[in-house]
Amino acid sequence: MINQEFRKMIEGKSVIREQSEYATARGREIGYENVFDFSLGNPSVPCPPEYTQAVVDLHLREDPMVLHGYSPSQSLPSTRAAVAESLNRRFGMDYRMEHIFMTSGATGAIAHALRCVTCPGEQVLTFAPYFGEYGPYVAGTGAELKVVPADTESFQINFDAFEKAMNPKVAAVLLNTPNNPSGVVYSTDTIRRLARVLTEKQREYGHDIFLVSDEPYREIVFEGTDAPFVSAFYDNSLCCYSFSKSLSLPGERIGYVAVNPRCTDADLMAVIFSQISRKTGHNCPSSSVQLAVERVLDKTSDLSVYERNRDLIYDELVKLGFRVVRPGGTFYIFPQALEEDDVAFCEKAKKYDLIFVPGSAFGCPGYFRMAYCIGTEKVLRSFPVLERFVREEYGAGR
Amino acid sequence: MINQEFRKMIEGKSVIREQSEYATARGREIGYENVFDFSLGNPSVPCPPEYTQAVVDLHLREDPMVLHGYSPSQSLPSTRAAVAESLNRRFGMDYRMEHIFMTSGATGAIAHALRCVTCPGEQVLTFAPYFGEYGPYVAGTGAELKVVPADTESFQINFDAFEKAMNPKVAAVLLNTPNNPSGVVYSTDTIRRLARVLTEKQREYGHDIFLVSDEPYREIVFEGTDAPFVSAFYDNSLCCYSFSKSLSLPGERIGYVAVNPRCTDADLMAVIFSQISRKTGHNCPSSSVQLAVERVLDKTSDLSVYERNRDLIYDELVKLGFRVVRPGGTFYIFPQALEEDDVAFCEKAKKYDLIFVPGSAFGCPGYFRMAYCIGTEKVLRSFPVLERFVREEYGAGR
Repeated sequence: MINQEFRKMIEGKSVIREQSEYATARGREIGYENVFDFSLGNPSVPCPPEYTQAVVDLHLREDPMVLHGYSPSQSLPSTRAAVAESLNRRFGMDYRMEHIFMTSGATGAIAHALRCVTCPGEQVLTFAPYFGEYGPYVAGTGAELKVVPADTESFQINFDAFEKAMNPKVAAVLLNTPNNPSGVVYSTDTIRRLARVLTEKQREYGHDIFLVSDEPYREIVFEGTDAPFVSAFYDNSLCCYSFSKSLSLPGERIGYVAVNPRCTDADLMAVIFSQISRKTGHNCPSSSVQLAVERVLDKTSDLSVYERNRDLIYDELVKLGFRVVRPGGTFYIFPQALEEDDVAFCEKAKKYDLIFVPGSAFGCPGYFRMAYCIGTEKVLRSFPVLERFVREEYGAGR
Repeated sequence: MINQEFRKMIEGKSVIREQSEYATARGREIGYENVFDFSLGNPSVPCPPEYTQAVVDLHLREDPMVLHGYSPSQSLPSTRAAVAESLNRRFGMDYRMEHIFMTSGATGAIAHALRCVTCPGEQVLTFAPYFGEYGPYVAGTGAELKVVPADTESFQINFDAFEKAMNPKVAAVLLNTPNNPSGVVYSTDTIRRLARVLTEKQREYGHDIFLVSDEPYREIVFEGTDAPFVSAFYDNSLCCYSFSKSLSLPGERIGYVAVNPRCTDADLMAVIFSQISRKTGHNCPSSSVQLAVERVLDKTSDLSVYERNRDLIYDELVKLGFRVVRPGGTFYIFPQALEEDDVAFCEKAKKYDLIFVPGSAFGCPGYFRMAYCIGTEKVLRSFPVLERFVREEYGAGR
């Protein structure tokens, strides 16, 4: 019969998607240019021309039998080798081809990584605020997601809460840096301390604890931000990456898992990943997309608009009296709402055609997310509206 | 800890892959042109030039933000609508956009379809001979795969065995026509009779039984073969398709599920599929690949080589005394081995650099599969070797 578990998921709709759909519908009424849609984390700049050129070249010059042939179950060797080389050069790592497994974006990467390093009944810890889709990702593995409350002062890790949450059932810690929704990048101090706690706990519990690091925003880090490469600090680490944001290719579904060569069973992981694919029905990303990103691994889209928008929005929010941590990367900012009820706050904002996402969708009520991957012109046009919203709804003089 | 279930799967290696790897290794010793490699079902003809042109045009002319943007969770509306229109026109169906869900090949299609229409603990029936990967596909859903023994006379359905296997726990029947490995296409009589049994059993058990039809070889049907469109005969039917074989794009991972508009909850299925994606980590196939196949839905590669090879090989096998059913499609043929032990038979063939796959890998011991998606020149060169193998190993005069 029709699976009721999946059927019920329909009701638990994504809040982000609901806000985005509202913005689109509202746009049809008043013109989308008049809706200040800060709901969706969709890149607002095109892919680099080198990517387009790579795709065209491959299709005009490569043997179609090679270009469109089956990938080996562990993905294309040339792409895996190129990713390893790029990571080694940029981050002083020593990955080999065997440690890289190409996936359908970061979602596929996390799905494979978590299935590999957890067993049903074990726990996966993550840190608030966190991307809401971690819920179904972890549920799909049979493990249980536990959320460590946020450190709302800095949006680094709340270590007191983390140490309290640790227990022998924890098989993996899932973190996201640069962080969606806070925009904060975990510092070298944070990652060092995290590694120390995990190392201690591994010893105490007598089993591995894997660090699954979700890094789709790794290339969107602003000047002056301390942005360590997480896997350099902890052996049992799996780095999950996506080209969706750095190359503006979200629809192409291309990313990878990089397994730390010093991880337990490091050389076996990609082989296990390929077995996982057989059960989830995912057999590698598109071969031509693998080959195309292989040619532009060190390129990015022109990401400067995000830093410009960050500067403008942060200053404006501070001016208007918001309590807000300055993002070091991504295209998100996560201010405290002007009332305790973040959902009510975002509802009121809608009256002004300002579309935000309530922090409770990220396990952090009382805050709200603005996704500023939109044109700077629109950002600037939103400021008088934001000012009016704050004044009319929450009183002047703030 | 590292998931032992997936780890153990490594040992249960695919027999097809083992034979193929042997052929590749042997090719390195004696030159691959001297290995008569009938192991892998990999298309041997290039994609049609119209596909290449579509990809190049899209990349040179389309807005990259649209081309590479996120697909909605149910996949791209224009592609879904075009697939529905093509199926309606060609097979007299009445699909609407809502009934089409683009997937990562037939594997993704089956993974989604089965997860939707079964619950853990229920049964999925399939008919021998069957594609061995159905094992992990079904295991991944939590349901149990039950195999109905083959009708080795015709390789149509063994209805006596089927009716015996039916029971109230059966939630879905998974069939594959044109069939891998037999090459046989289920006839209109077969599909009608199957539909009649399923309809009766639905009434008897008081619940839906879904027919999941795996049809990646639908376009590879030879002249004079009766090849009905399965879903036209049974309401609770889900058609799983892949462009891997018809457009020679196996590496691009592109296919779909088409939900019969008269199916229970027909309009809800694709919505449920999109929820399933959240848990398996598969979020639509590549957007640019969706858009490219949308432009060439009614094209195929030049598939004539497969029919030419079928004619030659069938005649040769008959001449050599093999008992074999003449394939109506695909690029497989499935003769009876010359001894009871099909594995031993295939091992002996290796001494002659003839690489076959034992029928036991398809739930049908005593037979062997030849994949004739290779050049006709090589097919012809294999005949004297085949003849020598038969004579030397199994005696003259056969």
